[in-house]
Amino acid sequence: MRKTNHSLLHLLLTLTLLLGSTKPDPDPLQDYCIADTAEPSYMNGAPCINPNFAAPSHFTTSVLSEPGNTKATPLGFSVKLTNITNLPGLNTMGMTMARVDLDAHGLVPLHSHPRASEVTICLQGTLLVGFVNTSNYLFTQRLRPGDSFVFPKGLIHFLYNEETMGPAVAMSGLNSQNPGAQLSAVAAFTSKPSIPDEVLKKSFQITGQDVMRIRKNLGG
Amino acid sequence: MRKTNHSLLHLLLTLTLLLGSTKPDPDPLQDYCIADTAEPSYMNGAPCINPNFAAPSHFTTSVLSEPGNTKATPLGFSVKLTNITNLPGLNTMGMTMARVDLDAHGLVPLHSHPRASEVTICLQGTLLVGFVNTSNYLFTQRLRPGDSFVFPKGLIHFLYNEETMGPAVAMSGLNSQNPGAQLSAVAAFTSKPSIPDEVLKKSFQITGQDVMRIRKNLGG
Amino acid sequence: MRKTNHSLLHLLLTLTLLLGSTKPDPDPLQDYCIADTAEPSYMNGAPCINPNFAAPSHFTTSVLSEPGNTKATPLGFSVKLTNITNLPGLNTMGMTMARVDLDAHGLVPLHSHPRASEVTICLQGTLLVGFVNTSNYLFTQRLRPGDSFVFPKGLIHFLYNEETMGPAVAMSGLNSQNPGAQLSAVAAFTSKPSIPDEVLKKSFQITGQDVMRIRKNLGG
Amino acid sequence: MRKTNHSLLHLLLTLTLLLGSTKPDPDPLQDYCIADTAEPSYMNGAPCINPNFAAPSHFTTSVLSEPGNTKATPLGFSVKLTNITNLPGLNTMGMTMARVDLDAHGLVPLHSHPRASEVTICLQGTLLVGFVNTSNYLFTQRLRPGDSFVFPKGLIHFLYNEETMGPAVAMSGLNSQNPGAQLSAVAAFTSKPSIPDEVLKKSFQITGQDVMRIRKNLGG
Amino acid sequence: MRKTNHSLLHLLLTLTLLLGSTKPDPDPLQDYCIADTAEPSYMNGAPCINPNFAAPSHFTTSVLSEPGNTKATPLGFSVKLTNITNLPGLNTMGMTMARVDLDAHGLVPLHSHPRASEVTICLQGTLLVGFVNTSNYLFTQRLRPGDSFVFPKGLIHFLYNEETMGPAVAMSGLNSQNPGAQLSAVAAFTSKPSIPDEVLKKSFQITGQDVMRIRKNLGG
Amino acid sequence: MRKTNHSLLHLLLTLTLLLGSTKPDPDPLQDYCIADTAEPSYMNGAPCINPNFAAPSHFTTSVLSEPGNTKATPLGFSVKLTNITNLPGLNTMGMTMARVDLDAHGLVPLHSHPRASEVTICLQGTLLVGFVNTSNYLFTQRLRPGDSFVFPKGLIHFLYNEETMGPAVAMSGLNSQNPGAQLSAVAAFTSKPSIPDEVLKKSFQITGQDVMRIRKNLGG
Repeated sequence: MRKTNHSLLHLLLTLTLLLGSTKPDPDPLQDYCIADTAEPSYMNGAPCINPNFAAPSHFTTSVLSEPGNTKATPLGFSVKLTNITNLPGLNTMGMTMARVDLDAHGLVPLHSHPRASEVTICLQGTLLVGFVNTSNYLFTQRLRPGDSFVFPKGLIHFLYNEETMGPAVAMSGLNSQNPGAQLSAVAAFTSKPSIPDEVLKKSFQITGQDVMRIRKNLGG
Repeated sequence: MRKTNHSLLHLLLTLTLLLGSTKPDPDPLQDYCIADTAEPSYMNGAPCINPNFAAPSHFTTSVLSEPGNTKATPLGFSVKLTNITNLPGLNTMGMTMARVDLDAHGLVPLHSHPRASEVTICLQGTLLVGFVNTSNYLFTQRLRPGDSFVFPKGLIHFLYNEETMGPAVAMSGLNSQNPGAQLSAVAAFTSKPSIPDEVLKKSFQITGQDVMRIRKNLGG
Repeated sequence: MRKTNHSLLHLLLTLTLLLGSTKPDPDPLQDYCIADTAEPSYMNGAPCINPNFAAPSHFTTSVLSEPGNTKATPLGFSVKLTNITNLPGLNTMGMTMARVDLDAHGLVPLHSHPRASEVTICLQGTLLVGFVNTSNYLFTQRLRPGDSFVFPKGLIHFLYNEETMGPAVAMSGLNSQNPGAQLSAVAAFTSKPSIPDEVLKKSFQITGQDVMRIRKNLGG
Repeated sequence: MRKTNHSLLHLLLTLTLLLGSTKPDPDPLQDYCIADTAEPSYMNGAPCINPNFAAPSHFTTSVLSEPGNTKATPLGFSVKLTNITNLPGLNTMGMTMARVDLDAHGLVPLHSHPRASEVTICLQGTLLVGFVNTSNYLFTQRLRPGDSFVFPKGLIHFLYNEETMGPAVAMSGLNSQNPGAQLSAVAAFTSKPSIPDEVLKKSFQITGQDVMRIRKNLGG
Repeated sequence: MRKTNHSLLHLLLTLTLLLGSTKPDPDPLQDYCIADTAEPSYMNGAPCINPNFAAPSHFTTSVLSEPGNTKATPLGFSVKLTNITNLPGLNTMGMTMARVDLDAHGLVPLHSHPRASEVTICLQGTLLVGFVNTSNYLFTQRLRPGDSFVFPKGLIHFLYNEETMGPAVAMSGLNSQNPGAQLSAVAAFTSKPSIPDEVLKKSFQITGQDVMRIRKNLGG
Repeated sequence: MRKTNHSLLHLLLTLTLLLGSTKPDPDPLQDYCIADTAEPSYMNGAPCINPNFAAPSHFTTSVLSEPGNTKATPLGFSVKLTNITNLPGLNTMGMTMARVDLDAHGLVPLHSHPRASEVTICLQGTLLVGFVNTSNYLFTQRLRPGDSFVFPKGLIHFLYNEETMGPAVAMSGLNSQNPGAQLSAVAAFTSKPSIPDEVLKKSFQITGQDVMRIRKNLGG
């Protein structure tokens, strides 16, 4: 179990590193700004390569053609995204496409994107999706293939494959080339270093033993 | 032929009315702003309904579940989009999802979106896609299922199903809830009222007879 | 206990209603746009009153002059904010000032602001503050009077009064007139309607009994 | 004829290179950011010189004092613009001024600016101007000296000197320091490499011979 | 003299009312949003008319065709601007064109635009122009016909006709449809109600008699 | 007196250098972008350090813990601000916190911020505050401890300690990490080089002797 949960953390870290380590740009101020991911300098968003070297291959990627490994965690999900590393032409474009694969009863756990709204379309299976607004109301819906749903910017949401049997697949658009993702439970219980137990005990109204158990189960 | 082309114009007008008649908003300034499409007032973007009446159904739509009618025009394509009428929760979210269906040899003709970048993913078939930058270079690529491509904001681009036999399907994300679309040939030759012949003759270096013929063929 | 926790929920709802029910505007496009909170129409941000009726009183408020009731919840904290209802001139200004009061061992629990960065200054007491980034690293610091700290936009953070004896006070600036707030535990466990147990069990790797207990303790 | 048209292409390339090769910035985040056009690095917008070296000359240019060569193409027009190369202080300012000169019957052909709205004022002669919206309606007007006209962002438009005898002059403001320009016919028929004939034939409902003829006439 | 200065105040008020009473919008979110200046509601920016009633005349104005009255004040200048009242199609376009006329030795006095950068081009005469940056350095230049100059957003600047004999004319573009203008001396000394003498005496290091004299001379 | 006023200029230059020499960024496009103030390159906003080296200390500062020297000038005020040098984590966050200290009868003289709105809260003493809008109306209010006031973006405003006896303290939030400040009288009369006397005489309707006297009194 420990190992599996460690894998969960690993997958989440991979996910968030993919999301969080790219450095996108604001509104495009020229036709495009092919990301220069080899550049050793850092800025708000990524630098560009010399525009004279722009090539069609900078604008295309196959990263979404295959599902990720949904067995890496007990949650049974994988998320793959376009980003400025696998799709350098995405830099400054204000868009990400994401592919979500879910095993039977797989879950993309509670999370939020600090820098993007999201529209998801269910391509296969049945998805229970929902978000909680800042007045603490849940908006939830069951999606069948072809159905779309909106997750407003910065709000906690989830996608759950209710099917006992088959997998589910969804495709999402997010309006930032670096939306970021923060998984509520993982951020609370497995950050490095740890959030003080006192803060977690009070925030969730749980005991110190609960904190230790949840942290361990989440691979922290 | 006339009739078919008239249908082309009709489809394009429907498409652009869908795109052009909605009135979205800038960055969300509250959790969401469910579009009030019954409201008789107009603004930059759409007004909201009373947030107390927000419901889960405002955030979901099945509009992309079925292909449009690709037989409506000789070009053999259809585009369906989420917008604030079929998906009121999209208002202020800065995102559109679009479904593109193409018959064998079907084409989404040269067009541009004045208010959005686009990332498209090929779901079925083989797509030849491309855009022209402001230095007049074409960036083109052949997409197979799972491949994605970036169309930078405001630049002329196309999607073409090279397959002789089967249909092709693509899903696109655009970073505006009202990207708009302008079809280069249709805007030039079939606007109401018409652009003066002299302007078209000079712009395209063609004769007045050419102008009349193209206009007629495009259903204008 | 139930009652107290119900109060917690009530306070949080009040807080989030204050934050979530106002309707601010983007960058000011005239000198000011005094919020018209009596206006029955809704938009992205709030409508303005007739600018001819603008008065100095629209630009001032005493709402931050007194602490809120820190006894309303077992967490021992209160947050008061300027908003377009108590300070109509704030509309379109892209700023909120907030006053945070904490009893001994009081905590502003884990939460995030979907629409604002925050800079807080400790005015009294000793505060342990921190945020978790999207790569799951915690950045934490101990603040003494006069010390400031930055909470980046949309990321989970907390403020904790470590003092056994006295209260603590902080003043925060947030760069939106409607930053919004989502409390991680409250949103997960006490939304209306509830997030399905299966989603919570998997997200937090806890049992159904844990879910019920935490929900009850948080007043849900 | 070939040569002349080649000149047209050359002029258009020069124009678009001027527009497309500069790298402007978003809203100014300091007083100014004098463009460092010698800097070998690339970003969304241009880097700045050391602000200590800012000089009054960085904020002034004579580039608009003389008309361009309207004889370079058979269309009889020239466009000159301020940009961050000839006016480095323009960087981050979100503005371009342009001077348009038109011979008798001269035409600025159908084109769009992917990153700017434009307001033009007729200084001399009589100008027929117009744009097509995304619902395919043409808005056209005849301008006499002192008359102004608005071209909305990203939409196809033209300026035509109806006078048989004399030249016309207009001055335009555009709200980006790098508005970009895409000439509809030139982008469609003379890009490098060429857009596949099949795409052009279908887009414009013309024959392959038409495609070749138009391409040749436009200098492609 | 009193009367003349009163006229100065009147002209400035007219100018600022024109600038300050319009209600523009952010980035266009549809093709255009013709300002509805008859609409009794107020928002950040102006509401639109029904887009079905958009007409070419909404996009054109002759307001800049004639100079304003430069004799209205002892400063010998007039400024005329496009705005959403005289050019409703300007709404949401993020642009203003302005015409500046200066008598011999006429001056557009020290002022700043809170919401726009400005590029001016000298069309006639010789203009001494300049702005002061936030480090208190003056950037000044002498413009002859055809010369352009940049005034960065929000900084104090002036335009002065050095010619003893003839008038000067300039055309400016500003990147907001409602840039606003605040004249430094007029705002300081003739506001209604008056800024307390103590504040003015200290700010300018002058006596109370100086304050009264300057206020009277400026028509306050 | 000369010396004291020279100190005023020095303090103001220090203030404005602090404000004007930093180079912030637009909306955060990753979690944070710790300012790299050692980086010899310049851009619109500041470059970041390698995000792997981000530390909690980058997000905290004690700069506001002590008052500045209010004796440096005859105006009896000091302003201290967070900025990307003393608080590198502020980069791209769109916020500044400022501490204002005023001696008895101390004044923050007439000034404006070209890039930020401001909300101030009076923490101690009695403050007379006010701003002038672009229609030349003054909005003024008397603040007691706990009272807040809004200064809209780019408009001239002041803070004055009316108390004969004790000091006053205020805390301000501004919605830019580099708001900038321009002091109306100092910018007009003591810029380097000087604004021509003719421009000042006409702008303020004063004599050349007045100009010389004010300039000298302000330390120019």
